[in-house]
This record gives sequence, C-alpha cells and structure tokens, in this order.
Amino acid sequence: MAARHEEIAEELRQAIDRADYAVGSLLPAEAVLAARYGVSRGTVRQAVAALTVEGLIGSRQGARRVVLTSRRSQSFAELCCFAQWARAMGREATGHVVSAAYRPATPEDSKRLQLAVGTPVLNIVRVRGLDGEPVLLERTVYAEWISPAVERIDPECPSVTRRLFEDEGLVFAYGEYLIDAVAAGAQDAALLGVRRTRPLLRVRRVTTTREGRPVEWSDDRYRSEAVSFGVRNSSDNNALARKAAPPADR
Amino acid sequence: MAARHEEIAEELRQAIDRADYAVGSLLPAEAVLAARYGVSRGTVRQAVAALTVEGLIGSRQGARRVVLTSRRSQSFAELCCFAQWARAMGREATGHVVSAAYRPATPEDSKRLQLAVGTPVLNIVRVRGLDGEPVLLERTVYAEWISPAVERIDPECPSVTRRLFEDEGLVFAYGEYLIDAVAAGAQDAALLGVRRTRPLLRVRRVTTTREGRPVEWSDDRYRSEAVSFGVRNSSDNNALARKAAPPADR
Repeated sequence: MAARHEEIAEELRQAIDRADYAVGSLLPAEAVLAARYGVSRGTVRQAVAALTVEGLIGSRQGARRVVLTSRRSQSFAELCCFAQWARAMGREATGHVVSAAYRPATPEDSKRLQLAVGTPVLNIVRVRGLDGEPVLLERTVYAEWISPAVERIDPECPSVTRRLFEDEGLVFAYGEYLIDAVAAGAQDAALLGVRRTRPLLRVRRVTTTREGRPVEWSDDRYRSEAVSFGVRNSSDNNALARKAAPPADR
Repeated sequence: MAARHEEIAEELRQAIDRADYAVGSLLPAEAVLAARYGVSRGTVRQAVAALTVEGLIGSRQGARRVVLTSRRSQSFAELCCFAQWARAMGREATGHVVSAAYRPATPEDSKRLQLAVGTPVLNIVRVRGLDGEPVLLERTVYAEWISPAVERIDPECPSVTRRLFEDEGLVFAYGEYLIDAVAAGAQDAALLGVRRTRPLLRVRRVTTTREGRPVEWSDDRYRSEAVSFGVRNSSDNNALARKAAPPADR
C-alpha cells in the first residue's frame, strides 16, 4: 500500500494534469492542503517535495508554490514501445524485420549487455513505420537470455515489446539514451526512403529490466523531419547531460 | 535544515558515486542501514524511495536493492552553462557574438517567453567554441526584463550564465529541450566551419527561473561529431518523450 504522502502526491499530479491547478497558477498553501486531505503539514510537505523533484512545481512564493508544468503525457512504456507510442497518437505502427542473425558478442555488445565476448547474441535490423511511412531504422542486439524469445516473434509484428511482455513477462524499466545526429548511410537511405547524407537523429540506447539487467542495446535512426525528442529538466533532477567527443576524436 | 531522510539519501548518493556501493552490487538491507545511521527503518525507506525515483537503485531483490547507476557527474548548471561544462572537462570555452539586435517579439517569442507580441526582445547569435574550435551556434532570444543586462555583457564573454548570476543574481532552474537533427544552412556552415547540408544536432530550449519565469529561448546547433546528449530514464521518472511531426507536416 502506498504511503499517504505518495497518495497525495499522485492526487496533486492528477489535479495538475486536469489543469485544476493550471500551469503558472499557485498551489494552495500547505496548511490548506493539509486541512483538505486531513493530514499533517509534514505529510503535505513530503508530497510537495516529490513534485518539486519531478519539476512539476517550483519553489515557494510566500506560502505557496507555482505550477511549472503538467506531467508529460508520455510514459516510459510509450518511449520504449513504438506501437504503444503510435497508438497514443492515433496512428498505426508497422514493423518489418530486414535481417535477423546471431553473431558472437563484440566487445561493444559485451560492455553494453554485460555478457562475455563471443556469447551468441541476436542482431536484428528492423524498419518501423507510422501509417505505412518508414520513420525509424533500428539495429538492435538482444542479450543471449532473451534472444530465443525474440527470434520466435513474427518479423512483421508491430509490437515486440508487447510480445515480450505477453510471452516472457518482460518489463523494461530503465534506459540510457545517447542522442546525436548522423548523415544517412547507404542502408539508412534505402530503408528510410531518404537521400544519402541527409541528417538523421540517432539514438543509441541500452534498456534494462527493473533489476538492472540489460535486455537490448540499439542504434536507432529516425528521419529527422518526422521525429524529435523532448526532455524536461530541472536543477533538482537533471536527466540530460551534454557530452563532448574527446579532442583526439575530431 | 534538511530532513534526516534527505541527509541519508544524499549520503547514499555520495557512497554510490564513490563506488562504495558499485553499480550492479546490492545496497545493504534496510535494517542494516537503519542501524548504521541510527534511525528508524521508515526513515531509511524514505531515503531509498528518493534514490529509486532518481533511477539510481532498482527494486528489491530479497531484502536488498541493486545499484543501477551512479549520478551523472553533470549538474543542471553545467548543462545550462557552456563555460562551466567546458571547465569540468578541462577544456577552454570561448564565446563570440556574431550579431545582437532588438526585435519586436514574434508570436513564437511571445509563446515561449510568455510576453506580448511586439515587446522588444534581444536576439543574439553567438558561436561557442571548445579549445578554439567552434562547436555550437546559438540563436537566443532573451525576455525583455533580462535583455538590458545581457546587452551590457562583453561580446567575447565566455560565460553569459555566470555574468547574469554575478550581475543580476539570476539562476536557471528549469529547462524544456526539444532535440532533433537538421542539415546545416549557409550561416550554420559558415560559422561552424562545416559544409552545407552536413547533419547538425539541434536543441531548441526554453530556460526558466526557479519561479518558472522564462528567461530565454534558443535554437542551438551543435557540430554532430563534436557533441551528443545523454539521458538516463526510468519507468518511475520518465524525462524523455518521443515526438512525431503531425502527418500534415511531412
């Protein structure tokens, strides 16, 4: 059972999402919230602290706090699951496997998936589309313990994430994303239907289970006029890091 | 004064950063931590909950929790402040103002900076370099209340953020970032020293004070082989959202 302050935090998040407390307006004072929920001011303070860390509300203005933003409507599941994301936008997801083959884990696979070099891992190249139009080319390597389950999935399956959940009970819980821009290579261009050298948004990612076990790592390339990524950030909870290539790399 | 559970959360974060608890290892059980810090298990639970939301530790394995990652060494200040970021890497930041001019706020300025259309706002184009090499072209629009202070800053000042803090006490606290890839245009190419149509990593951002007041919005373009962005994400705290252009845009 959730602690009372967690329940209150969730009620406040939902009230902000519904714009009962609109962005730019002030939350009621602690004492008012405490009376409304029939709890101590300390309990309200804990709920409010959670929303502050999440960047939903700002610091105190007098006795009250300003609402900075509502929650992203996008969940982590939508971020991980292309089909779920498409559905939330009212669009149709497609998936098409271009190639699927086992290979001995390279040193990079080994590092990202925490397994021994040479372990057989499944490497899949897959085009994802929205309403029939290709927008994403995935080059994904799966950890050896999940590769057989992935191999059994229909090559045209629109939602690998959902199949892995239904078949294996697998839930993605953490992800590390590295985002940059690259020029489309020959295979990128052919499969995404763009000219060679066109800018693509590249996302290299490792996704893990709740226990921190790596499931897959992927080099994803998006048609840049079709997809972008948004990040919300705060000084209390900085999710985004700018990274420079070492001088020697350039 | 920070609550005891906040102090313990911070001690745990530091211990994880120092790899006293290495990534992949297990934290001590709640009862052990409670005894070590001389507090109740409820207090330890609050500290642990904070680290779980931050994505540093995972869910329970028996009585213990796995360490998933240490904190990003990068703070929000480093993300906002080019010079501070460069210094943290042991590299030298440069800044060079290419143009600075007031313009009447456009509808886009108005929306992003929450001010009336036509309000005079300062528009600055600035090249930022690392060790003398251009890596970033910023096109920044400042809110009218901060524009005069920005105007007074030396065009070669390496750290505008620091000057605004020193001169005005201004602290950036929240940011919304939209990341995609674009082809270098003529001005991009000339100022960044790349060929036209080369892929650039574009970051459009709005930065606000702790009270949620917009300070500036910017179209930042990075040489893609020089800079990338990393995001750490979890199902409990999803900072990253994938966004599709509407079908009509394409």
